[in-house]
Amino acid sequence: MIRLYDFDLSGSCYKIRLLLNILGVDYTRQEIDFVDKEHKTDGFMALNPFGEIPVFEEDGLRLRDAQAILIYLAGKYDPARTWWPTDPAAQGEIAQWLSTGGNELMASAGARLVKILNYDLDLPNLQNRASAAFAILNAHLKNHDWLALEHPTIGDIACFPYTAMAGEGGIALDPYPHIRRWLASMRRLPGFIPMPGIPGA
Amino acid sequence: MIRLYDFDLSGSCYKIRLLLNILGVDYTRQEIDFVDKEHKTDGFMALNPFGEIPVFEEDGLRLRDAQAILIYLAGKYDPARTWWPTDPAAQGEIAQWLSTGGNELMASAGARLVKILNYDLDLPNLQNRASAAFAILNAHLKNHDWLALEHPTIGDIACFPYTAMAGEGGIALDPYPHIRRWLASMRRLPGFIPMPGIPGA
Repeated sequence: MIRLYDFDLSGSCYKIRLLLNILGVDYTRQEIDFVDKEHKTDGFMALNPFGEIPVFEEDGLRLRDAQAILIYLAGKYDPARTWWPTDPAAQGEIAQWLSTGGNELMASAGARLVKILNYDLDLPNLQNRASAAFAILNAHLKNHDWLALEHPTIGDIACFPYTAMAGEGGIALDPYPHIRRWLASMRRLPGFIPMPGIPGA
Repeated sequence: MIRLYDFDLSGSCYKIRLLLNILGVDYTRQEIDFVDKEHKTDGFMALNPFGEIPVFEEDGLRLRDAQAILIYLAGKYDPARTWWPTDPAAQGEIAQWLSTGGNELMASAGARLVKILNYDLDLPNLQNRASAAFAILNAHLKNHDWLALEHPTIGDIACFPYTAMAGEGGIALDPYPHIRRWLASMRRLPGFIPMPGIPGA
């Protein structure tokens, strides 16, 4: 039985919900009160000492970090292995975008925390860093339908939510037509689910 | 033929040199003048628009991001698949530490850039964030010989250099005996190579 420590408004948690739904995997949600900082309580830090959501459990396995969870799920529950192929070169290509989703694009997540939860962070700096990453994504997507390979992978899922929700951090995506095309393609994937801030197709 | 765009003093590049040496893989180095910011020139940004080293090339494949390169190399050149096993749960466990090596522990890398290259960054903040990560690593290593699984993996390699070089960022490892034991184990690995700031066993 899979248990996901989850928060509705978290783009990082949504990455996991989205892949679980695409792959048709059942799971139980354990809602974490992120607004009230439940993820920084002793109880939650016993599950993940980094104090971050999501956390994933299945039988004896417990994983933190959205990107690590995507790797596990796509390796285990996608028999066709299109989301995380076994080929080393394909894994390397995808892993680049897992890193981007967990690093540079988290600046967009930070800007959103300032805007929607009044976090005391340097908003202009976060917006500038996110915009720099968006410019790179847009240039890449000019010549590619998906971030890695010729079809959607967990690299796309890792980069999707905090790009799609850039507006909630005060960053307009108007300058990035190729990103907007890619976001629309993501919304049309079989098994796509929306979240607050990311409407359906 | 493998080409590594490399800089001697970069811990991120050293991750790749270390795994290449452990696996006995030949390669050519292309030295990047990081001090003179060659990684921010148009020429280099054409290889990696994020403007970061290392960059890896082999035949038609080009990869950025140290962690992505580790995944590729261990998948391709370790026939025993101990450094990056094929099992999804093992990959998930390891990928958690790839993220830590590319995220939280980069605060230690940042502190080191302030100390050795006079970067204009918030040193106390970087040192505090790195120390928080070291405390988590130390607690984890109290009950584990290696970060993931029962043997060394690319998760250990990803976290090794900027932990080993904490002192160069002004962060003492005295409070972390389990980290110091793990660092000593890393230095005894067959195929280990030193770098400036990381002496041999």
